[in-house]
Parts: sequence; C-alpha cells; structure tokens
Amino acid sequence: MDKIVRIDMGAKGGPKITTEPVGEYAGLGGRATTSLIINKEVHPLCHPLGAENKLVIAPGMLSGSTGAMTGRLSVGCKSPLTGTIKESNAGGQAAQVLARIGYAAIILEGKPEGDDLYKIIVNKDGVKVEVDNSLKLLDNYPTVAKLREQYGDKVAYMSIGSAGERLLLGSSIACTDPELRPTRHCGRGGVGAVMGSKKVKAIILDDAGMKHRAPKDPEKYRDANRKFVEGLRKHPVTGEGLPAYGTNVLTNVLNEAGGYPTYNFKTGVFPTGAKLSGEALAELEIKRGGTATHGCHRGCVIQCSGIYNDKDGHYLTKQPEYETVWAHGGNCGIDDLDTVAKLDFMDDNIGLDTIEMGATIGVAMDAGLIEFGDKEGAIRLMEEVGKGTPLGRILGCGAGITGKVFGVEKVPVVKNQAIPAYDPRPIQGIGVTYATTTMGADHTAGYAIATNILKVGGDVDPLKTEGQVELSRNLQIATAAIDSTGMCLFIAFAIMDQPETFQALLDMLNAFYGTELTADGVVDLGKKVLSAERDFNKRAGFSKEDDRLPRFFYTDPIAPHNQVFSMKDEELDEVFNW
Amino acid sequence: MDKIVRIDMGAKGGPKITTEPVGEYAGLGGRATTSLIINKEVHPLCHPLGAENKLVIAPGMLSGSTGAMTGRLSVGCKSPLTGTIKESNAGGQAAQVLARIGYAAIILEGKPEGDDLYKIIVNKDGVKVEVDNSLKLLDNYPTVAKLREQYGDKVAYMSIGSAGERLLLGSSIACTDPELRPTRHCGRGGVGAVMGSKKVKAIILDDAGMKHRAPKDPEKYRDANRKFVEGLRKHPVTGEGLPAYGTNVLTNVLNEAGGYPTYNFKTGVFPTGAKLSGEALAELEIKRGGTATHGCHRGCVIQCSGIYNDKDGHYLTKQPEYETVWAHGGNCGIDDLDTVAKLDFMDDNIGLDTIEMGATIGVAMDAGLIEFGDKEGAIRLMEEVGKGTPLGRILGCGAGITGKVFGVEKVPVVKNQAIPAYDPRPIQGIGVTYATTTMGADHTAGYAIATNILKVGGDVDPLKTEGQVELSRNLQIATAAIDSTGMCLFIAFAIMDQPETFQALLDMLNAFYGTELTADGVVDLGKKVLSAERDFNKRAGFSKEDDRLPRFFYTDPIAPHNQVFSMKDEELDEVFNW
Repeated sequence: MDKIVRIDMGAKGGPKITTEPVGEYAGLGGRATTSLIINKEVHPLCHPLGAENKLVIAPGMLSGSTGAMTGRLSVGCKSPLTGTIKESNAGGQAAQVLARIGYAAIILEGKPEGDDLYKIIVNKDGVKVEVDNSLKLLDNYPTVAKLREQYGDKVAYMSIGSAGERLLLGSSIACTDPELRPTRHCGRGGVGAVMGSKKVKAIILDDAGMKHRAPKDPEKYRDANRKFVEGLRKHPVTGEGLPAYGTNVLTNVLNEAGGYPTYNFKTGVFPTGAKLSGEALAELEIKRGGTATHGCHRGCVIQCSGIYNDKDGHYLTKQPEYETVWAHGGNCGIDDLDTVAKLDFMDDNIGLDTIEMGATIGVAMDAGLIEFGDKEGAIRLMEEVGKGTPLGRILGCGAGITGKVFGVEKVPVVKNQAIPAYDPRPIQGIGVTYATTTMGADHTAGYAIATNILKVGGDVDPLKTEGQVELSRNLQIATAAIDSTGMCLFIAFAIMDQPETFQALLDMLNAFYGTELTADGVVDLGKKVLSAERDFNKRAGFSKEDDRLPRFFYTDPIAPHNQVFSMKDEELDEVFNW
Repeated sequence: MDKIVRIDMGAKGGPKITTEPVGEYAGLGGRATTSLIINKEVHPLCHPLGAENKLVIAPGMLSGSTGAMTGRLSVGCKSPLTGTIKESNAGGQAAQVLARIGYAAIILEGKPEGDDLYKIIVNKDGVKVEVDNSLKLLDNYPTVAKLREQYGDKVAYMSIGSAGERLLLGSSIACTDPELRPTRHCGRGGVGAVMGSKKVKAIILDDAGMKHRAPKDPEKYRDANRKFVEGLRKHPVTGEGLPAYGTNVLTNVLNEAGGYPTYNFKTGVFPTGAKLSGEALAELEIKRGGTATHGCHRGCVIQCSGIYNDKDGHYLTKQPEYETVWAHGGNCGIDDLDTVAKLDFMDDNIGLDTIEMGATIGVAMDAGLIEFGDKEGAIRLMEEVGKGTPLGRILGCGAGITGKVFGVEKVPVVKNQAIPAYDPRPIQGIGVTYATTTMGADHTAGYAIATNILKVGGDVDPLKTEGQVELSRNLQIATAAIDSTGMCLFIAFAIMDQPETFQALLDMLNAFYGTELTADGVVDLGKKVLSAERDFNKRAGFSKEDDRLPRFFYTDPIAPHNQVFSMKDEELDEVFNW
C-alpha cells in the first residue's frame, strides 16, 4: 500500500491513469484515507455528480494482512444524498485484494463525455480502464456473472447495479463475498451514483501473484492477532450472538426495549416482530439448507453472515442484516422473512441501500401509495426502482425525496439520509449520533445501542439524557479510528469490554507498522478524521442547526415509553467540543 | 387594518377563529408584517407542511386606500421549496379588499386531521370557515367559477389549484384580477403547498359595506398621490415600455445583452428570441382582440398586464410576464408564443410558479425526457403535473427535485429555488442578489437588472464585479421596504430615477399614517425586514456557504461574453454587512 492510483475519467482522449506515492497518507487507511483526501481535494460546494467530485476507494490500515477481521473497504466522496462528506464501508473481499495488490487508494476523478460505460481492471501489472457497454443497465448479480466469464473466480468484484447507472441517490457499490456474490455493499449516501456519474460500472481486483502484506514484526503481529481472535471468541456478542444469529439477533432485543421503530416510526414495538427475529431467521436458514454462520470475507472469525435459501432450498440472498430486516420488515409492518429476503436480494441486485429503501417504502406507505403490511406492494415498488420508472426514480432517491414529492410530513432523515432501526426517543444516545455525525443519520457512526441497550462498555440509561453526549462523542471518535484500520466495526464489542483485546488491537497495529501507537493515539486518529469531515461539511454549508433530528421526534412521543427526543440543542452542540 | 385574525385549522372540534389587535405590527404591512410574524412565531426547523408552520396573508401599508399601485398582497411562511423564510407577493384585487375589510393579517396555523377541504369567507361581519369538499382537486379557473356561483363577482378570490392540494413544492396561491380571473399569483417558494397542507382551498374576500381606508391627512395624501402618479407616467419604463409591451419588453433587451439564459443556461442568446418579444406579443394580442395594456388591480396606473386570446379570439390567458415567456420559451428552446401562453394558462390553472415550472422543464429536457424546443412535449409534461402522476409530482416539485431524481448536474437553483430569466454570468449584479437574498434565487429581491442593463438609478457595468455588492445591497433594502408598502415593485424605476417621485411616495406614507418618515426611515424599514428574515434563515440552518450560486456558474463560461460568475465569496458575504 505504498501507492495511490488516480484515474481521470474525464481526460481528453479517454481515461488517464497516473500512479503516485502514497505520500502524506502513508500509514493511514480506510476512512482516514478517504476523508482526508476528499477534504483536501474536493470542492465542498461541487455538484456531487459532477466532474469536481471524486470517489476514493481505500482498504484499511491492516487490510491484506493475515490479521483477522481486516476486510473492510472504505469508499469516500461528497455524497449526492446528504451533501456532506461521505465514508461508506463494506465487507467482502475487495479490501483484502486491493491492499495486497498494493494500492492505498484508487481515486476516480473527472467525468467522461459520451455514453460509454467503463470497467477498471487492477492487478499486479497495474491498472487498465476499458469500455464495456455490454454491461449497461445490468444489475449486480448478472454483472458479476458476466464478468466471471472473463475474469474468473479468483478475483474480487466491485460493481454498481442499474440504480447507480441511473444516478439514484440511494444507490450502493457492491463488493463480492468469498463466493463471489455481490452482497456486501457500501450502502449509504448514494456512493453508487457517484461511481455511476463517472461511468464506471465495475472494478475487477485481481491479486494473483501477490502475497499477504507483511508486518514489520511478523512474530509480534501473529501473537497479537491470536490474542485478538481469542478476545473476539470470548465475548458473548462476537463469540456467541453474532455467529449464531447474525446482526438480526437485535430484533427481539430492540422490540423488547420498545425502541423498534414500527409503521414508519409511529410506535416502538412491532407486535409480531418475533417472526422476523434472528432466532427465527437462523432456524429457517438451517432448515432450508442455507447457513446461519458465514464470513463475508476471508479472515473473519465472527461469521455473522449467512445464506438464505428460498422454500425450495435455492439460494435467494445472503442473510439479511438486522437493519434490513427492520427497514423492509417492521418499519413497513411486514412480518414475513421471505418477503424481507426477496427485498434484500432486490436491493443487492439493483444496487441500493437497504436501510434507505426500507425507510423510503415506509414513507411511501404513509403517503398512501400502498398500505402498511402490503408485502406484494413493497415488492412492486422495488420493481419500479429496478425499471427506472418515474416512480421508481423517486423511491430510489430515498426517503427524503420521496417525502418531498408526496408531501409526507413524517420523514425520518437527518441530512436527508434515512434514520435506521433504532428509535432515538427511547434510546437518546443513538439520537445524539444520528443528529451530529458527519454522515447524516447513521447508527454505525457512534453505535450508542452498545451501551444504551446491550450494556457493552458501560451502562447509560437509554431513556435519560445524562451521559449520552459523552457516550456518542467517544463512540464517534473510536469508530472513525476503527473505520480507518480496516477492521470490522463489530470488534468494538470486545474491545470496549475487554482491555486486553483492545491492547491486542494496538499491538497488531504497532507490530504491523513498527509504531508505538497508544490508546491516546487511537483517539487522536479518530479526532483527526472527524475534524477533517467536519471541516468539509462546514465549508459545504452545514451549521449546528443541521445537527438536529426532524421535528416530529421532539413533538410526537412514541409508545410504549411515551418519550420524545429530549436532548437540548446546546447539548448536541457539545459533541465535538473536545 | 387594526386587527389580525388567527385561524387555527388544527383546533379540536374544527377550525378556531380568534381576532386580536394588530399590536406591534401597527403601521406595518406586506412583507414587513409576514416576515416579522413568521420569524417570531414559527419554529425555524419545523416541517414546512406541518402544524408548526403558519401562513400569513397581509395587505400592504397603503393597500385599500385610494393611492395608486397599492394592490400587492404578501404571503409569508417557511417555504417548503427552499426551507428559508418566504415572502411571495402578488397583484390582483385581494390586497385592496382585505385591507378595506380591516385586517392587517390573516394567520393560518395548525393542520386539520381528516380529509375535509375548507374555504374561508372574510367580510364586514367577520370570518367564517366552512367545509367545501365540492372543490376538491379543482384547478383555479373552475374553482373560481364555482365560487362565483355562490359569492358573485364583487369579491376577490384567493385559491390553490390541484398542485397546492397535492402539496407540490412549486405550487402557488392565485389571486383574482378585476375581471375575476385567477391570474395573479404568489408564485414562488411553494406557498400554495402550505395553504394546501392546512386544507384551505380558497379564501373569499368580500368588502361589501366597507370604504377605502382613510388617510390621516386626506388632502395631503391626494396631493402626494397625484404627484406620484405623474412621476410614474413620466418615466420611460413605467410610462411607456411597461404599458405598451408589459414586462416582456425585456426579451429583446436581455437577448441583445447576451444575458438571456437559453437551453437551460447553456448560452446567453436565443437566436429566434424576437419571436417571443414583448413587441411581437403586443401586436398579436391586439390583432386577436385581446389587449396589451391592462391593470391587474384597480388603482394601477402602469397597466403592464394584458389579455392573450387564442387564434380564434377566445381568452386563453393573461399576458404572460417576461419571466414566464423566458422560462417556458427561450429557456426550453421554444419560440412560439401560443405554446408559451398555453403553458402560462396551465400554470395559473393548476396553480404553479411559472418560473419554477419553466426551469424544471428545461432541466427535464437536459435529462433527456424531451428535446429542447419540443412544444407538444412541454405541454404533455405540464399535463402530467395537472394529473398528479409520479412524473407530474416530480416536475411539480421544481427544478431542484427534478434534477436530483433524474441525475442532472446543471440545475439552476439557489436554495433550491429556480433562477429566473437573467444569467448571472454576463450580469454579475443579479447574481449577487440570487446568491444572497433571503428568499432563494429571486430577481425581484434586488433587481440589479435595473442598473446593470436598463441604466435606471445609475450605471453599473454588468460584466464587472465592481459596485455589484453595493448595488444589490441597496436594492434588497429598498425592495424589502417597497414590498411592505403594498406598492407594486415597478414603481422602483421611477423612484430610483426621479427624486420628486420618491418624495411623493414618502409623502403618501406620511400623509396616510401621520408620520414623518424620511428616506433613512425607509432604509431602516428595509433593514429591519431583512434582518428578521436573515435571523430566521440562520436559525433554520443556513450559513454563508448557502449564499452561493451553483458551481457551474463559476466553472462554465457562457456565450457570447464567455464569462463566468466571478464575484468572490468574501464579496458576497459583505452584502448584509451594513
């Protein structure tokens, strides 16, 4: 990872490829790399789908090594959905492969004229950009199927579906898992539309002839990694809950906590939510010959993924994540796993963020387009998106646009990005994160659920305002750092509860880079990333008044706790006051 | 105008009407009244279509008197289009009638549950609110026709078309002219959607039994008014150009100046623009038995309006304004007056802002929905809006939303409101106004065209940056004051050039109110209004970075002057630094 490749898609005479030393970004990775580059190089008031925006693709600091859990890939840009800076990360194989080929970042810039569609091939010999109009308007599964005919199975694919080509604001970038299914998505913020605006359909990453990245101190790295893995296996969340039931283990937990937004955020409990639970999901997957325990990238020891087969035992989709099950399920009053799985497949295939799409269908239900609980109706709406009809385009542009076009008042978005599966009224801590993160509403940016609900890393009462600002602040700082390492965020459960596991992570980083990073150094890294992101957003016109939830969270109490979001504006303004 | 009526549309048991003394708003009117009330009473982060927003309807300071040109009605709210505070004003009869009935403002607040549609009747006996579901989804012409059966011809009607009921962000509020045609619109900012969100279809204003408002010093008022009228008749713009050709006298002027945005702002000259000119329009109107000289309200002495008949001599629409002719004409590559007139009628009938809709169709053309110059296609798109199809809803929500849904990069909006008929690259002064006004892109907020192009009130070179900030600042201050008086903004030409006409205006105000207002006092009033508006916008999250034009104005030079918008950010930030 000592070089960066820059591809000017708008160069006269066709895409121009230049390679440069990693320079000031040496020793960084993932979100640190993408956010620092975007903040430095992109005009904050540019049109997100114009030539001035850039798409930065960066593996994490430890990606490509033999370390466990190091397979997260970060993608950064100015978001067409939120107008803020954006880092969206995914699992799958891409990060490991790109890191082993040796690139700290791919920077896509400019915008080609004409209608040609391109693919980018990255391997040990360098980078090539080729026109491939045969891929036009193919969705992700057929795109990968077609590419596999040419490039085989020993590579990693990144691609956009028809949604990204159509520049829809809810579109994602898919990364293939070890079995080459395009199931791991940089989902949030419309990053797929930015790739689409640059007319890049797919990136083929081929690490044939390359080796694992070598740590400065291999023995120390191996030792630290072993302790790190032990810690993950020991913790009840990463060692038991996630492997057995996946992220959807949360459905029952959130429903019982009264924090499960149901019927487009009208109540906090979904009466038949148990039918969507991780427990029910795992049982069904196993019964149908799928699996409830699967890793989305090689080196994963948590194995929170799975395979969802249809009733005939044929692959339908990967195990839907909790937020997906919520978005397409309870949020829409739908309690049927087969419907949710079908919608998950459609999202992955068309190339859409599942959270945004579920929230959007919830808003469409509030608008009266279909009834809450209408399973066939929800699928029909998604088909419209896949076809790119005017209605489909509205929906594919997310909950905010859908709310505006149909005049819906209750639209759960912050900075125009859909609020995920945790209601901020009975869980005030996650509300602080939604309101203040640089990303628009995003649970992963500072997952207060850990401490508010799961009691990981302490215990902060979710119903009270006390302690939430500090909790969200610390989580946002830690997350910005973790998102830079290439580590899956789920390691946070173990490192928050087990000091020795956190130390093992530090040891891994230090053994790999020959550094002497301390806990304070991790905090400094997180702050550095967040500061860059906040600087961009400020210059893009965002002010503290944008760090608020939609008004209905302040005015409409939600059952069963009958609470509103009651954090004061002045408290929210303290999150980044460190 | 010593009282305000407040109608809580969301009160339990049905709309609740309360009347209160005018209080702190005594002696104010129009924009001063609406903006001060909105800034004081509306939560700046409320949902514009929610119960927390208010719609304030206020006649001007001199409305209802015998003074000339005093027929402007201001409507204020938080705009669903821009998210800013909004004042949108119109001619027609409403202001005069409402003022004579004695109300300084109608404040619509709250939001009813259920599907009932209401009408409000205001007369000498007070205010009534009645359900009238027979008006549902009627457009403005049939709405007024139906209301005339019940309320007759001696009243003024305000109404929304289907667009307002559908909560489309481009929807307007129509006011009838002296012949009871719903042709004078509070067009900008989606004020019709706010009225629609409160389920108010129409307001019937009946001043039977009421007299002209009496000045404190009638003789002095009559004398000042006579001098004021003399001044208007003497000035070439208000005495000759506007009466003869209407506002569309500007088509040839702007086209010759190279500042006529053509093909969605791709070039500054429309080769066949002369076919759309005010000269051609007046000739056609007269030939077909219409008229090129008509007043939109009683007391108008400029008479810039007109009647446009179809080729069979039947009324088609009122004389389209310059900005309408541009928006639906040159901006879309359409050089046919009958098409423009038809689209103008459709806008008025469906209840839409002509500027927003023309700009939107231009963006839709850039998106490839139809070709530039496609007359039938443009009409077909407007029919979609009238039908409320998904495509129609997109378009009816304006240029910004349309650009997002269809992934168009070149979207001429500021704060999501469409930029009107004057390109800011060859006319830098108007760009300063677009960027900085509290309203989103709006030429009327500080009409720098006067001095940049028409050489009224001085001569500031439109191609240079020098002097533009001061020009826009002074015009914005003066406009905020004029918009409060109830005076038609077109008086500005005469009062900018003729000190004695400005003095006559001051004398009218002082004679009416028994005050001793000076030129400085007018400036103070304008600043007071702008300061309230800026305070609201700041609290709504707008920062100086929002006071910019879209990037393409800075990066893409426009022919024939091959200029970009070159005002520095720091210069724009000086506009309100007084």
